[in-house]
Amino acid sequence: MNILGKEWKTIWVEEDGRSIGVIDQTKLPHNLTPVTFNSCKEVVEAIKNMVVRGAPLIGVTGAYGLMLALKDDPSDASLMLAFKQLNSARPTAINLHWSLCRVVDKVKPLEYKLRAKAAKLEADLIAMEDERNCELIGDFGLDLFINLVEEKSIDLKARPLNLLTHCNAGWLATVNWGTALSPVYKAHRAGLNIHVWVDETRPRNQGASLTTFELGCEGVPHTLVVDNAGGYLMQSGQVDAVIVGSDRITRGGDVCNKIGTYLKALAAKDNGLPFYVAAPVSTIDWTIDDGLSDIPIEIRSQMEVTHINGLNSSAFAKQEETLIKLSPNFTKAFNPAFDITPSSLVTTLITERGVLRPDDVGSILTLSNV
Amino acid sequence: MNILGKEWKTIWVEEDGRSIGVIDQTKLPHNLTPVTFNSCKEVVEAIKNMVVRGAPLIGVTGAYGLMLALKDDPSDASLMLAFKQLNSARPTAINLHWSLCRVVDKVKPLEYKLRAKAAKLEADLIAMEDERNCELIGDFGLDLFINLVEEKSIDLKARPLNLLTHCNAGWLATVNWGTALSPVYKAHRAGLNIHVWVDETRPRNQGASLTTFELGCEGVPHTLVVDNAGGYLMQSGQVDAVIVGSDRITRGGDVCNKIGTYLKALAAKDNGLPFYVAAPVSTIDWTIDDGLSDIPIEIRSQMEVTHINGLNSSAFAKQEETLIKLSPNFTKAFNPAFDITPSSLVTTLITERGVLRPDDVGSILTLSNV
Repeated sequence: MNILGKEWKTIWVEEDGRSIGVIDQTKLPHNLTPVTFNSCKEVVEAIKNMVVRGAPLIGVTGAYGLMLALKDDPSDASLMLAFKQLNSARPTAINLHWSLCRVVDKVKPLEYKLRAKAAKLEADLIAMEDERNCELIGDFGLDLFINLVEEKSIDLKARPLNLLTHCNAGWLATVNWGTALSPVYKAHRAGLNIHVWVDETRPRNQGASLTTFELGCEGVPHTLVVDNAGGYLMQSGQVDAVIVGSDRITRGGDVCNKIGTYLKALAAKDNGLPFYVAAPVSTIDWTIDDGLSDIPIEIRSQMEVTHINGLNSSAFAKQEETLIKLSPNFTKAFNPAFDITPSSLVTTLITERGVLRPDDVGSILTLSNV
Repeated sequence: MNILGKEWKTIWVEEDGRSIGVIDQTKLPHNLTPVTFNSCKEVVEAIKNMVVRGAPLIGVTGAYGLMLALKDDPSDASLMLAFKQLNSARPTAINLHWSLCRVVDKVKPLEYKLRAKAAKLEADLIAMEDERNCELIGDFGLDLFINLVEEKSIDLKARPLNLLTHCNAGWLATVNWGTALSPVYKAHRAGLNIHVWVDETRPRNQGASLTTFELGCEGVPHTLVVDNAGGYLMQSGQVDAVIVGSDRITRGGDVCNKIGTYLKALAAKDNGLPFYVAAPVSTIDWTIDDGLSDIPIEIRSQMEVTHINGLNSSAFAKQEETLIKLSPNFTKAFNPAFDITPSSLVTTLITERGVLRPDDVGSILTLSNV
């Protein structure tokens, strides 16, 4: 998608064919900084530190991480070690596990000299599929938006369709297009009058720093709010629908997503508003049914709560990234990164194979892939 | 209450008897800075800028503001101008209006030379009543906690009673003791094993900067979480009850409180947990029934969302307060300060006259004041 007039993707193979480039998402929105990975170890650290993040993008990045490991050492031991390290870099999103398994299944039967090349081809394929899947999610989501406008008789000449989104499930969370934001881009490009309320999404502020950035770069009208504000916006009739991504969906339709998603789903239900979840089929974990008991919730550093990073705005300071402390020294923090939205609170899942009810996830297997 | 071994109140008449001292709450938790007001204009600015905040404390501060105005000019015109300026300093909390009316009613019939003195006496009385009311709220709330421990058969030797609170409704929001935190202090002093989850409460972070500070100074075990985390904590059985304060309660029992309160009330309901609201009777607005349609919600500066202030933690910087920018320059923000929790989501109101169901607010008039 667009950044300052140039088309970008979040991840690419560098010209040497042996290293991987990504946008460093910890530097946005204030600095656009591409970084290059030459080893699997660098990829593991980048996933842990959220240089790349977003369930689909972590999956693609992990696949390329295996390629980098096999380039240095194509042995079975190297492959298994890389798989283990990448797979445990972040525990909650299932897409990482899924894409790593795809690459391992592909390269394991091959002789050593072919493995790095095969891993690259499979990672390229996963990346291409992700981009295509996200674009299809956009098309299906746009249909939902158009139906909603008709159903609610919204006069788009008088006011926009108001969506609320949590965290970043935009193109920065995928290779391109995004999941929850893909229908937004499709709608905006189709000339639909649309406006997005962006939850800042503490503690890491992916909404304030990434979703605002990508919407602004694409020219989509948006307004930043604190995570606390969504309930009020819904109470006061300023939201038509909520749309979010997901890190893991159970076969029972429970949705694991960024911490705070569940609270917005409760508010949507209480105010009779649709709650859409947009995710590729690879986000579904067919091995589990109950989200609350079966999905491991990542607990991250308390520093992400007690401190926050941003651009120093002091009149006499250089405009540089500065870390500030928010709480007293004696206060400890707890930092769970995800929560579970029960399927009963989800109106519709939007996938690359079409839309479905969350209590009918299994039916996706009967939908033909486009 | 206690700060570094010394007993403090949030507001006091200075020794000269003609000026008012307060703790500057915008400087906490990093700096304890008393400031002195000599004029009503300074008080108006201090309320607007949240140097003092919290519905009960704003009420007391406003009353002293009238004293300062009458000290300079005891005329009717001066009184009415001061009333108007103070009353509109912040629109949502009803306690300010209530206390200003009390002082005006008292001084209006008096001749000019008696007015400043009478205003001081009434403000002193309001402050004393606030402190006593808060302590009574603490006693009634402690009874509720003890009942809850018995009801849920919580073994306090094995684990603490876990409360979650939003914003700051502690002693810093009142003259002393607090509303929602008064029962916590009573419980802690009574030796009850208690632990408080503290919502940071964006955008102004009264939880991260004030609630943590006062709980820590009193030695109450507490853990800071982002506002998004409460739903997960409740889902995973880590919360026994939610307790918050209020800025205005309708006669129908709807509770207006800091933005984000409604989301926690929804989550408490969804998880079968009690949702307590602690507030003095002066918080009840008997003129309105429906919170959503009748309570004016203050909209504050978007800078409170796009920027945040804290202690510079850079290794080479002086340890000083620094303002940082969180979002891109092209992004606008919207900043509503309160939301409405419908009475159906509130389990119990805790007042200085006792506890009652929110759909039975009127019965408070039949409870004798202690």
